[in-house]
Amino acid sequence: MKYNIAIVGATGIVGKTTLRVLEERGLGQENLFLFASKASRGKKIKVGGKILQVRQLTEEALFSNSYDYALFCTDEHVSGRFVERLALKGTIVIDFSTLYRKTHPLIVPEINMERATENIICNPNCSTVAAVVALGEIHKRYGLKRIVYSTYQAVSGAGKAALEEMKGSDEKKLKKLPFVIKNNLIPFIGAMNGEYSSEEEKMIYETKKLFDDYNIKISASCVRVPIDVGHSISIFFETKENVTTEEIYSALYESEGVRVVAYPMPKDVRGQDDVLVGRVKKDEFSLNSFSLFVCSDNLRKGAAQNGVQILQGLIAGENDSL
Amino acid sequence: MKYNIAIVGATGIVGKTTLRVLEERGLGQENLFLFASKASRGKKIKVGGKILQVRQLTEEALFSNSYDYALFCTDEHVSGRFVERLALKGTIVIDFSTLYRKTHPLIVPEINMERATENIICNPNCSTVAAVVALGEIHKRYGLKRIVYSTYQAVSGAGKAALEEMKGSDEKKLKKLPFVIKNNLIPFIGAMNGEYSSEEEKMIYETKKLFDDYNIKISASCVRVPIDVGHSISIFFETKENVTTEEIYSALYESEGVRVVAYPMPKDVRGQDDVLVGRVKKDEFSLNSFSLFVCSDNLRKGAAQNGVQILQGLIAGENDSL
Repeated sequence: MKYNIAIVGATGIVGKTTLRVLEERGLGQENLFLFASKASRGKKIKVGGKILQVRQLTEEALFSNSYDYALFCTDEHVSGRFVERLALKGTIVIDFSTLYRKTHPLIVPEINMERATENIICNPNCSTVAAVVALGEIHKRYGLKRIVYSTYQAVSGAGKAALEEMKGSDEKKLKKLPFVIKNNLIPFIGAMNGEYSSEEEKMIYETKKLFDDYNIKISASCVRVPIDVGHSISIFFETKENVTTEEIYSALYESEGVRVVAYPMPKDVRGQDDVLVGRVKKDEFSLNSFSLFVCSDNLRKGAAQNGVQILQGLIAGENDSL
Repeated sequence: MKYNIAIVGATGIVGKTTLRVLEERGLGQENLFLFASKASRGKKIKVGGKILQVRQLTEEALFSNSYDYALFCTDEHVSGRFVERLALKGTIVIDFSTLYRKTHPLIVPEINMERATENIICNPNCSTVAAVVALGEIHKRYGLKRIVYSTYQAVSGAGKAALEEMKGSDEKKLKKLPFVIKNNLIPFIGAMNGEYSSEEEKMIYETKKLFDDYNIKISASCVRVPIDVGHSISIFFETKENVTTEEIYSALYESEGVRVVAYPMPKDVRGQDDVLVGRVKKDEFSLNSFSLFVCSDNLRKGAAQNGVQILQGLIAGENDSL
């Protein structure tokens, strides 16, 4: 039996990566239904050796089939129009937008797959995924008391137009923009809400929710950097128990989805599934304060790959219970 | 009376910026003696409307004149050969290298000019200068208990060759390098010494020395980013006293050398004297934990300008005591 799987937003950066990851993970042969905006209507995409035609995302087109699973590689506006209705019809929807993250299960399979028990399942924020994969085993063993995040986020996280702007050479046009990423940093991501940017609010809230621990003190500062792919995070943390650098490294070596390297760098993480973690250092003044550096492919583990891993986890769980 | 001022390393990135800042600040008309390595011998540079010839830095050439002041825009190898002997001869040397920072006064004029009382005076690390200018008034008013630095440092801090590498388009050559900055981050700066990079050790030690407070708990993670000029720092800090965001902003508005902006960015700081500070946010969990974002021109306030400000302070002090 093949699954019917809808991929909504199939032609965006994350959508395309999702198709690639589905292929890599042996799901390219399922019955895939690709949807995108009007501009991509009729486009043909090769997945798993077959040529699939992209359909325009309309109510009629989407609801003319039934799906076992749907991956929404879309923002909250698009997700908001379709996700709940599909879920009510029995489709298990994995939604990449922010819309349902406060009200529905938020899942990183390495951390909390057992919570994926509803028909709407949320894929977390891209930076948060990498952070919790890096910190999960440390938190389990020693308890995290405080986390300070400073991010270095790639431009692909802001979509195609931003990537094109960075690569563009129209200096005059760039000079007119209030926020330019070429040869610059932008010290906020998403909308500002008082003192916080939405990306910072997401990292703080979603880390707590993923760890199911609302007592961790979390500070986050999110910054866009001029590189195309690969989000990095400088993380300072305090554990509840005193611990050595060697014990932190042991926890990392035994963490699912983590590869320990001396120097985690975007250039080494592109196209990779693992979150790279390194530069663990203990603070001179304390027995429980450390910093480390994390790097992950924001399009893969930060989005598409995590979504497909959730899908795989659900399929595996379904087969287990047969 | 004109001062005899030697500028050693006059043709490097920082040396050239030093000449520009000397001009801007009305010191271009002093008797300037420019020294550089053999490769720059005979080069002509226009300073203060006059054409000056660059001399090759040899013992004979350097010691054939006497100087009131000397600015060494050089690394510890070059500084080590000449600085102490010049100082013994009565020249007041402002040294940009790391060599004397632990044993001689380390000065940021906005913070501790009164300590510039020896013949060898050290210009601090580029990132540290920006950080202490941003935090100085906050520390004075409310006392800093803990600081967590994550830096975003520009490539010009690594010298001309690194800048050329970043701008280069020889992709094959770049792929062979273990650490490439083009479209990448490098999560260490300087030499590694156990868990720490030398840049991180400098930020920790020099912040304490500049604030003359060795009890502040400081963590630092230093990262090179692919932009040409403008160092940024994401700073988390805890004050001893409880304080509001408004009080932090008040301290910043009243800080010498600081310009408060909504979004400090490298593009806005190039060629500027002020350190840009913004994005102050209070942590939800605490009455004394904050973060903010800092950006400064690493060639100016991070190096050349701070050195020239020290020189101006010394000249002003000399004139005061006449």
